[in-house]
Formats: sequence, structure tokens, C-alpha cells
Amino acid sequence: MPSNTFGTYFRVTTWGESHGPALGAVIDGFPAGFPLTEQDIQSELDRRKPGQSKIGTARTEEDRVKILSGVFEGKTLGTPISLIVENKDQRSRDYSNIKDLYRPGHADLSYDLKFGHRDYRGGGRASGRETLSRVMAGAIAKKFLALKENTHIIGHTIQVGTIKAQKFNETEIEKNSLRCADPIAAPKMEQYIIQVKDEGDSVGGIIEIIVKNTPAGLGEPVFDKLQADLSKALFSIGAVKGLEFGDGFKVAELKGSQNNDEIINRGGKISTKTNHAGGIYGGISIGTDLIIRLAVKPPASIAKSQHTVNKKGHHATIKVAGRHDACILPRLIPVAESMVAITLMDHWIRKMAMKPYSKDKSPF
Amino acid sequence: MPSNTFGTYFRVTTWGESHGPALGAVIDGFPAGFPLTEQDIQSELDRRKPGQSKIGTARTEEDRVKILSGVFEGKTLGTPISLIVENKDQRSRDYSNIKDLYRPGHADLSYDLKFGHRDYRGGGRASGRETLSRVMAGAIAKKFLALKENTHIIGHTIQVGTIKAQKFNETEIEKNSLRCADPIAAPKMEQYIIQVKDEGDSVGGIIEIIVKNTPAGLGEPVFDKLQADLSKALFSIGAVKGLEFGDGFKVAELKGSQNNDEIINRGGKISTKTNHAGGIYGGISIGTDLIIRLAVKPPASIAKSQHTVNKKGHHATIKVAGRHDACILPRLIPVAESMVAITLMDHWIRKMAMKPYSKDKSPF
Amino acid sequence: MPSNTFGTYFRVTTWGESHGPALGAVIDGFPAGFPLTEQDIQSELDRRKPGQSKIGTARTEEDRVKILSGVFEGKTLGTPISLIVENKDQRSRDYSNIKDLYRPGHADLSYDLKFGHRDYRGGGRASGRETLSRVMAGAIAKKFLALKENTHIIGHTIQVGTIKAQKFNETEIEKNSLRCADPIAAPKMEQYIIQVKDEGDSVGGIIEIIVKNTPAGLGEPVFDKLQADLSKALFSIGAVKGLEFGDGFKVAELKGSQNNDEIINRGGKISTKTNHAGGIYGGISIGTDLIIRLAVKPPASIAKSQHTVNKKGHHATIKVAGRHDACILPRLIPVAESMVAITLMDHWIRKMAMKPYSKDKSPF
Amino acid sequence: MPSNTFGTYFRVTTWGESHGPALGAVIDGFPAGFPLTEQDIQSELDRRKPGQSKIGTARTEEDRVKILSGVFEGKTLGTPISLIVENKDQRSRDYSNIKDLYRPGHADLSYDLKFGHRDYRGGGRASGRETLSRVMAGAIAKKFLALKENTHIIGHTIQVGTIKAQKFNETEIEKNSLRCADPIAAPKMEQYIIQVKDEGDSVGGIIEIIVKNTPAGLGEPVFDKLQADLSKALFSIGAVKGLEFGDGFKVAELKGSQNNDEIINRGGKISTKTNHAGGIYGGISIGTDLIIRLAVKPPASIAKSQHTVNKKGHHATIKVAGRHDACILPRLIPVAESMVAITLMDHWIRKMAMKPYSKDKSPF
Repeated sequence: MPSNTFGTYFRVTTWGESHGPALGAVIDGFPAGFPLTEQDIQSELDRRKPGQSKIGTARTEEDRVKILSGVFEGKTLGTPISLIVENKDQRSRDYSNIKDLYRPGHADLSYDLKFGHRDYRGGGRASGRETLSRVMAGAIAKKFLALKENTHIIGHTIQVGTIKAQKFNETEIEKNSLRCADPIAAPKMEQYIIQVKDEGDSVGGIIEIIVKNTPAGLGEPVFDKLQADLSKALFSIGAVKGLEFGDGFKVAELKGSQNNDEIINRGGKISTKTNHAGGIYGGISIGTDLIIRLAVKPPASIAKSQHTVNKKGHHATIKVAGRHDACILPRLIPVAESMVAITLMDHWIRKMAMKPYSKDKSPF
Repeated sequence: MPSNTFGTYFRVTTWGESHGPALGAVIDGFPAGFPLTEQDIQSELDRRKPGQSKIGTARTEEDRVKILSGVFEGKTLGTPISLIVENKDQRSRDYSNIKDLYRPGHADLSYDLKFGHRDYRGGGRASGRETLSRVMAGAIAKKFLALKENTHIIGHTIQVGTIKAQKFNETEIEKNSLRCADPIAAPKMEQYIIQVKDEGDSVGGIIEIIVKNTPAGLGEPVFDKLQADLSKALFSIGAVKGLEFGDGFKVAELKGSQNNDEIINRGGKISTKTNHAGGIYGGISIGTDLIIRLAVKPPASIAKSQHTVNKKGHHATIKVAGRHDACILPRLIPVAESMVAITLMDHWIRKMAMKPYSKDKSPF
Repeated sequence: MPSNTFGTYFRVTTWGESHGPALGAVIDGFPAGFPLTEQDIQSELDRRKPGQSKIGTARTEEDRVKILSGVFEGKTLGTPISLIVENKDQRSRDYSNIKDLYRPGHADLSYDLKFGHRDYRGGGRASGRETLSRVMAGAIAKKFLALKENTHIIGHTIQVGTIKAQKFNETEIEKNSLRCADPIAAPKMEQYIIQVKDEGDSVGGIIEIIVKNTPAGLGEPVFDKLQADLSKALFSIGAVKGLEFGDGFKVAELKGSQNNDEIINRGGKISTKTNHAGGIYGGISIGTDLIIRLAVKPPASIAKSQHTVNKKGHHATIKVAGRHDACILPRLIPVAESMVAITLMDHWIRKMAMKPYSKDKSPF
Repeated sequence: MPSNTFGTYFRVTTWGESHGPALGAVIDGFPAGFPLTEQDIQSELDRRKPGQSKIGTARTEEDRVKILSGVFEGKTLGTPISLIVENKDQRSRDYSNIKDLYRPGHADLSYDLKFGHRDYRGGGRASGRETLSRVMAGAIAKKFLALKENTHIIGHTIQVGTIKAQKFNETEIEKNSLRCADPIAAPKMEQYIIQVKDEGDSVGGIIEIIVKNTPAGLGEPVFDKLQADLSKALFSIGAVKGLEFGDGFKVAELKGSQNNDEIINRGGKISTKTNHAGGIYGGISIGTDLIIRLAVKPPASIAKSQHTVNKKGHHATIKVAGRHDACILPRLIPVAESMVAITLMDHWIRKMAMKPYSKDKSPF
């Protein structure tokens, strides 16, 4: 199923099972001549890395990226960029106990219904480990957008359980285990997670993503509206259960006069006074900040005993042992930022493709 | 920009400006031999029709569909189905006053930034009128899923302003102007809308979509998860600002043990005890109900005076006169249902394409 | 089946059966701001028109194009361009005699095997009439390439039966019924066709297409080589049975030293001394002429009696009466030119999308 | 540029430069549950391997395939199959002499025009080495078609220089260095090649591909006709300059009554008496043999001195030293077979996707 490629112009194809020999991404449709090193990608991969704090999994993959093609003498060739990470820490475990059991909240049953046959070792393709391919691709898109457009994508945790961030101090984000911009809320969130983890349980929360210096003119009129492609990008992350732009669900209670953003002339540049819309009008960005929020569910793998059935339909109980995250938000942030970057990169190239006609001879 | 096609296997291409001669859809990838008449499509189009109640626009397009290709002797040919609706009620108006003004909350500015040139008559391609093409395509998908899988897609209004439906009585939905399943909340919603309309303003709300008898095995592991494709489908509707599946934003406050759906054997069929997930696990349906909610913004076209600028960046005020909906929810419901149907149809065909290997000779 | 769309960036979707109410094309991915009128398209359509000479069919469709969307105030909007031609001359015939018979050389049997159900009136979607949609789309691409790049696509007949053109005089092409650039060969070809037609038979031939002022840099390294996409474009025309670029089949007898084109500096521009390759190297144009030849089969519809079977497999004889072309080459030329233009337009937009990286801020 | 993916339903994405660390393919859209081993792929890769005879290059890559994902417990998972071959024999050479020279007949100039920057070590992505990714993907498609449909794809050399095969004895093909089915012509061809190679030159030729037990119903009505997709597949191989189906270029001299294939009842199965068409009617197979011929140019890399220019446009002479094939036909045969297999596999899946409607509940 051609489901493993994202993007139309900037195309990211990913592959790999969580417990197979390696995972990777092939990136097609990226311009030639762009400076790119393994370190550019590694630094984003390190942000996603597990085992960084006491709230996450103890699994400590090294996750070293190798560039296998598409870069020559430090610059991209315009040919596919093949990226690979070998799976080093595949603990030699016995999976026979879960082989025939369906873990609640997991893809075990749905994969069996669809494919007949599945890789039961740690989730296979359904594992969150799949997202490292996205982060590798996202790193390239991020660097491009930053160098070319000065675009900056900021993800941060705004809620865990019922604890909400009250402040936004961007410099705090990478200082705490939650990637929370509120230095007072962050330790409370962390404490709550540790407590729930000790119960053998897990917690959900909300992430916000802000895009500064969004290029104007990204997005297309009908089906490929910018919010539509961003939503597909973000809902393709397994744990996301809700998504909103700008005022989001609050629009239900607003009147048009409250929700419309008045258009103003800000120092010679046409902009808006407010940003209820989250930066997109008629599916197209105008250069103001994108504002997106994602509801993230608590991880399904919990140590608590749960009821389920086995392949034969017989009742069973299951405790999902192993090294799991009790709260996935801080590790999900670089993944979500990456999906935003990939989507913006795709639309950036579309925009180049579709410059309005002029009589000038083409530039090259 | 190839943004006017939705779907990978079942492909819907739409065209048409709100004040051009016609609008239409071309459907490719639909099986041969399926019984189809213009009336099958017309009945859905009539559900979207404006001018049905006092809360909507007074514009009364007749909106008669014609099938121009792809059907012969009452059955589909497996070739593209071309559908057209002529624009009858294009009032000969003077648009010179809004030609150079950017309406707040509209696509005027973003289109100008992107295309240089735009159809300023009533929004052109950015008009909600574009959605009739989707309803025509959706009608075909709905009929197919109903006949083949007994699938039933139910859209209804659950909130307008702060008024929430408290009950779900499916038979009430088509009986009131809101398509609300709660016969007590519906008149309150209607009354509120009329009041706001009289102020020259508009209101938002929330729609829920439930899919009964969802086929199992729809959706793909990574990027084309069922929720990802559904979210793109629904966020491609201009007024949608938030979207959630199952427990949605509430998952932020839940623990894994509360959010996981226990797996049970229900009379020989493996299913779940609860439906917090909204019917999708690992991106793939298992046959339980899909549950989706959409936050819909108040229409941007309001009679109240608003501040804006013109093309030259000079300050101006604008009152968007004309025949506009004060609340778009009831007319948006068939559009949203259609986008769900189109997405499910697309994934249904994918599933056919990717049946697991068996040694049997192929069936035809 | 998504088989009715051609192109990746410049996308042409066609629809319509030969004896349905209309045929059309929807063009997506074309830049905004380009001047376009119905007459631009009509003039190409007229070149394809039947009934222009004694060697063609007597069917005289008027074939008037209407632009239904995508153009406003004489310029394209960047939204889909919907084009339609109504079928005026659908003679009310009795098709019951061929309904159950398989015409040799036609798609009757293959459509029945694939779809179960087919439009037996004149071939339906398999009719050559389908190609008028291509000519409409091609007209837009031709105009764009001519205005922007001064590109000029010349199709001409170089062989009919065993009669070969010996000269190339471009100004002769549109002066004779064969579109042959050799004014001596043309009447011989015509005479031969009339003679064969009188026998109730039909003839094949060879067409050459030359592209002058081809933009450099069109085509992609691996699968989407320019010759690969051109070949798909041209082999999608039913009557084409062979295709070659540059020296074509003659390369079998050449040595590398004979076939390689030496690279020279022609007045400051790097070019080649010869053009054995037909203008493409490694899948990419360098700005020299494209040279393509197509072998076109004799039309399958002949008045002569032929053996066949009916749906039940019983032997039968058939004479395909009706208004058919005895030689399709002159009418196929604008179709082939259109497919070349569409392919070049698609690759032109790709090239815009993929300009090598520079540190400059993006141009808009 | 998304040019590195072939296929719509069965998708093959390839990556890798000839002198980079590795080359590979990612295959998406292949059914779950199919038995697959590295050996299945290795055996086809070995057929393409260089250094097998005195007519080819002396470069002797080992070319060992590794399966990195998509297969578990010997069966495919329905997830992407990632295949990799490491580049072992990257001789540490000095390329500075050709770095700034454009080799005649090569992609050096066109790549520089397009990308600005290129991998000058042995051609990079333009190298014939890229085709090993295709052979890996083709091996999977071949095995599937053979097991499921008993389809058999036979490629053989029918002409080298002016020497033509006169006989077709299938069992001879793999016995000689030319893959020629005529045991008398084969040694003559070989002798000719050795002689030309000694001159520092190279030779072209013609390959024929026959597909036995082609499934009926492959191919689509308009743009994705089976011959159109096969032609794109085959013209994407750099050395191919001409292509024909069935009678091919000979149709120019035939009349309709000579070219049409009479339809007959052969033991209860509807078939044709002759096969002038090469197995395809209206773009769709009917189950008879596919017959395809490819004109293959002499390799551009020759030891003879040639005129060219350098990057600055200064005249130069060049002798392309190195380990090159004097005749590429025998090694191109598995590549061409692979491209045919990939195309048929893609259309086979399309056919599954688009079975005509029946009232039966869907099969799973």
C-alpha cells in the first residue's frame, strides 16, 4: 500500500520495523546544491532519543544516522537522499507470550484483521520507533526552511493531565524534561507523571506548535488546504486524538464578529490585528504565525493488568511489560515539529512550481 | 496545482467558481457495473441546498445534477463519471465595491498573495459553493458503501454557541433545521441563531459524525492512517477549525487504563468493550463505530461593520452584504458526511487492492 | 481507475464516451495570470476535426469548446480549467448488430473481459473521439510553451504504406490533407489511401515530431526521463505501435563512435555537433531539437468482411460500417503534438519546482 | 523530484549513486503473506552481474542483497520492503580528469544544466549501476506473477549490429553470453562484439521480450494503457532508443485487413488467430502473449578518442577509460524483464482494486 510516502512534491518514504535490522527514510524532491551533513540530522534525532529522563523509556538506542545517497561533497545532488539508522538495541526477548494476545489500545488486532500476518516483536511497523524516520526527514526540511525563509517551528507541552502551562517562555522549552515553556508548571507535570508511572499507568496531554516566519502563499484552494495537509501530517502520528488551529474548538462559542481577524496595515505590510484563524485563510498562509494544538493520548502500553482476548477469542489478562514511556509528549514534540516542517517544505516547493505567469523568460 | 483532486484510488476532481457558468466533479476509480442514477445524487444535493430554512441564505439555486459520462444503461462503466451543475442564480451584481477590499476571515488576501489575480465575484473557488461537487461525489460513495457493506454515515449538530444537544435520537435529525438529534435543544439553537443573525452576526458550533457498520481493515499503517485521511478530508472544508476522534481532547486528562479499550469476544466476534478510540487502532478500523467531532467556525460574511484594508493597504470598513448563512452547520453536515464517505470509499478500494496473498488463482 | 489523468504537476483529467452527451478535460496545476481564450483552444481542435478531406471520416462534429471554469477576465486563475465539447452529431443508429460482436483490432473484447459491461455505441471511451480532450489540454500547453520559451512543436507525416516523404519543407505541412512536408510525396500518399479505401480497407504510416527550442533541463534522472514520459504520452494514443527517438531502431547497427554526439561550443553555447540522440541525454534535454517518430497502425474499422466471434463464442463475420477514417495520420498529428506539449509542460513545471538551492530569499 | 518512484499501486522507489556507499530500493504496495527470501532476489541480481563474460566489463561487484524490512518469518508483512546492496568495488580512482569534461553521449552536460552540481565519479545516479535496484524489485514481481498467474517473462537478444537471430529456441537463451535464443547467431554476435571492443568501440542491438500467460484485463482505457505504462518502464532504461509492440514499425506498410487479429474460439476460450497487436487491444491485455522489442544503443563509454568541451566550453578530447561493457544487451535483458514485471505487477494490483461491482459482501 503506498501509505509509506508522505508529500506530493517533497516526498518522504519511510520503512522499517521496530525490531528489524534497521529503519530508514528516502527523500525525493529536494533541491540540489543544499549544504547537508549527517550532524544536521543527528541533532534532531537526538531530541527524539529515548532514555533522556526519568519519565521516559529506559531503552537507549544510539540511533546514529548514516546518509547513503543524495549528498556529494557536502551538498545535495537533487537525487534521492537515503537515510538509515540501524537497530542496535534489539533485546533478545521472548515474545511468545504476546504473540497471540491482543494488547488493548494497540494495533495488534487491526493489523491481524488487515494483513493476516504481523511482526509481533514490539509492534513492528506500528511501533512509535517508526517516527525516527520522520524526524530525519524533518531535520532536512527544518534546515531548508530556516536558511531560506528564516522559518522557525516551536513545539511545547501545554498540558499534562489537568496541569496546564500558564506562561510561554520559549527559552525554557529545552531546559526541562517536558519541553514545557512554563518553568513552574513543568516540574508539576513531571511529578504527576512519575506518580502515575509508579501506579503502572500512563498519562496524556496537549502540545502546541507555533510556526514563526511562515512563508505566505503556502496551501492550495480546495483539498490541499494548508490546514488539511498539516492535519493529515499530524494525525498520522499514532497518539494524536485531537487537533485544532487558532481558536480551535472555542469557535463553537464565538460569533463571526469575534472570530474574524481584522486586516491591518502593519508598517507597510498587510497583516491581521488578531490571529484567531491560526495563520491560514481559505487554506492559504498569509505570513502570520501558524498556531496548532494536538491532543495526545496516554501510551497504551501499561504495566497494569488489563482484560483482553487472544487470537482464538478466549478471554485473557495482560500486563504490557517492557521499557515504555509513561508520557510521550516530550518525545512526540520533535516528531510533530518534523511533520509540520515536511508539510511546509512540500508546500514551499508547490509554490515555486506555480508562480503566477509572467512574460519574463524562465530564470534558468 | 493538483490540489483539486482528493483520493488515491477513488479519485474525485472538482472544478468551478461560485459565479462561473457551472461547477462539477469528475470521479475516477469507481467500479464498473454499479447501478447509478441522477436521482441518487440529486437527493444528497438537495440536503445541502440553501434556502431551506430561516437560518440560512436566501439564495435558492436549483442545483440540478447532470451525469455527462461514465454511466450507460443505468450502470457505471468503470470510466470517469462526469457530473455537472449549472449556476442558474448568478445575480447580476456590482462587485466593484469589494473588488479591491479584503474581507476579514476570507480568502481574498491569501488568494491575492498566491495568485496575483482572483475571481472577486462571491469568492470564486474559495466559495462554500465549491462543496456541492463534494456532495455529488459523496453521494456515489455513500450508495456504494450502503449497498456493499451496509455502512451508514450519520452527521448531526451537537453544539451551537453554548447550547449543547443532550440526547441522541437519530430519527429527529432530519426533522429540524439544525440537523440536531435532540428535539429539545434544536429549537433553542434555532432561536439563538435568529437572534444573532438579527444583530448582523453569525455563530459557530460542533458537528458529530458517527459511522455505523464501518468495514474492518480500512486505513494504512503509517502516513495514510484512517484518521489521517479523514482529518485531511474534513479540514479541507474551509470552516472546520478543530477535529477529534473518540475521546478527542479529553484524552489529555485520561490515564492509559482509562483510555484503552478492553478487547472482548462479543458473540464470537472480537470487538471492544468501550470505544474511547473512536473505532481506529494503529490507523486501521476494526469494524466498530467511527466517532468524529468537528468544530465549525461562524461564517466570515457578516453584515456588521468591520475594519480592513484595501489592495493599496489603505484602511477601510466593510459590511458584507448579500445572502449569507448565519450558521453553516446544517448545510455543512452533508458535506462532512460526503468527505467521510469519499475517504472510506478510497480506503475500501485500497483494501481490495491489497488482499493478503493466497495461492488461489486470482478471482477473475 | 486513476487512469484518466495524465501528468504529475500539470495534470490533465479527461472524461466522456464517444456517444454520450459530452466530452471534456479538467486541467489542474496551470499557473495563474496566463491569457487564455476559447479561440486559443478552438483553433487546435479544428486541426483535429474530422470531415476535412476525402481521406477521412464523413462525420462532421462541430466540436465547439466551452471554458467552464478557471479563467476570469481573460486570464487563468490558477484554479482548475474545465473544458467541455458537446456531442452534437450522435446519429441515432441501431447498434444491436454489433452489441454482441467483437470487432477485430478493437477494444470490445478487452473491455468486456475487464469491465463486464461496456458502452457499445461507437466504442465509448475506447473511441478515438476521446482524443479531443487531449487536444484541448495540449492547446493550452502549446500556447504557454510558445509564449514563455518560444518552443515550437512540429508534427508531420513521413510515411504512408511504402510511400516515404523525401523532403522537409515545413511550410507545406498544413497545405495538404496528409500534413506531409514533402509536396511531391503528399499527393501520392493521398492517392494510395483513396485506392485502399475503395477496397474497404485502411492504411498505416509513420509520423515524425520535431520540437524546436526545447527548454534545457527537462526530464528527470531515473524513471521520469523525458523520453520515458514522452513515450507513455504517445503510446497512450491507441493507434501507436512503435516509437523511437533520434536514430531510433538504427542504433542497433551503429557503433558508439557513430552514435555518440560530439559536444561542441556553438557561439558560446555548449551544444552537440550531431543529434543522434534526439535531444535527450541521461533522460534530460539540453536544449537541442527533440526528434521522435511514431508508427501508426491502419484503423481497425474496415468495411471488408472479417471473421470474429460473438459474446457466446460463436463464429460470425462482421463488416464495420460507418463513417471511419481510412488513414488516421493527419488527424493523429495534432493529438500527438498535444501529448508532447502536455508532457513538456509537466516537466517545465517540475523544473520550476526544483531549481537548485541558492541563498537568495525566495522570489515571492 | 519524485522521479525515483515507479508505479501507482505497486510502488518501487530507488536510490543510490554508483560510487556512493550503497544502492537500494523500497517497495510499497506489495501484499502481505507472500513467501520471500533474499535468495529469490539474489538469483535475479546474479543474472545482471557484470564480469560474466569477455564481452562485458571486468568490474566484479559482489552485489549481495540484504532485506532490511517488510519480511518476517519468511513472509511479507504488507509493509515496505527495503532492499540494499553495498558498493564494495569502488576503486579509489582519480576522477579529476573527467570532473570538468563532458563525455559525449553521457548525462554529464544535462545534469550540470539541471542540477548545477553532480557526482562525477562514474556517473552517479546516471550510471547503469542504478538498474540493480530495478532488478531487485523486479525479482519480487516476477516471483509473484509466476506463483499466482504462471506468468513467464522471456527476454532475449535478436540482433547485434547487423547480425540477426533466425531461430527461437528458449532453452538456448541462458547458455550463451548474449542471451540469444539462436545458437548459431550467438557466437557470431559475440565474435563481432569482441572485434569492435578491440577497436575501442561499442555496439548496439535489439532485444525482444515475450510474456507468456499474461493475465487478461491488465491496462486501463486512456492514459494508462498497458503499452503506455510498459513503454515508460522500458524507455526509463537509459540505453533504449526505440520500442515496438507486436508488428511495430511494420504496421506502416500494412492494411487494416492485414493488421487486425481475427477473433476466434480456441477450445472454448475467446482468443485471436494471429498476434499482430502484441497482445494488447484498446490498452488492455486479453491473455495472449505480449510481444515487445527494444532498440538498444551502443554504450557511450568508449576507449576511442572523441571531441568534446569542458565546463568552460573549451575544446578537448577524451578517451573514456575504465571497465565498460562493449555491448550491454545481455545485462540489459534482466533489467528490461524486471521493468516489464514491475509494470505487470502494478496493473495486476489495479485490476484487483477495480473488480466490477457485485452484490456479494466483500471477500474479507
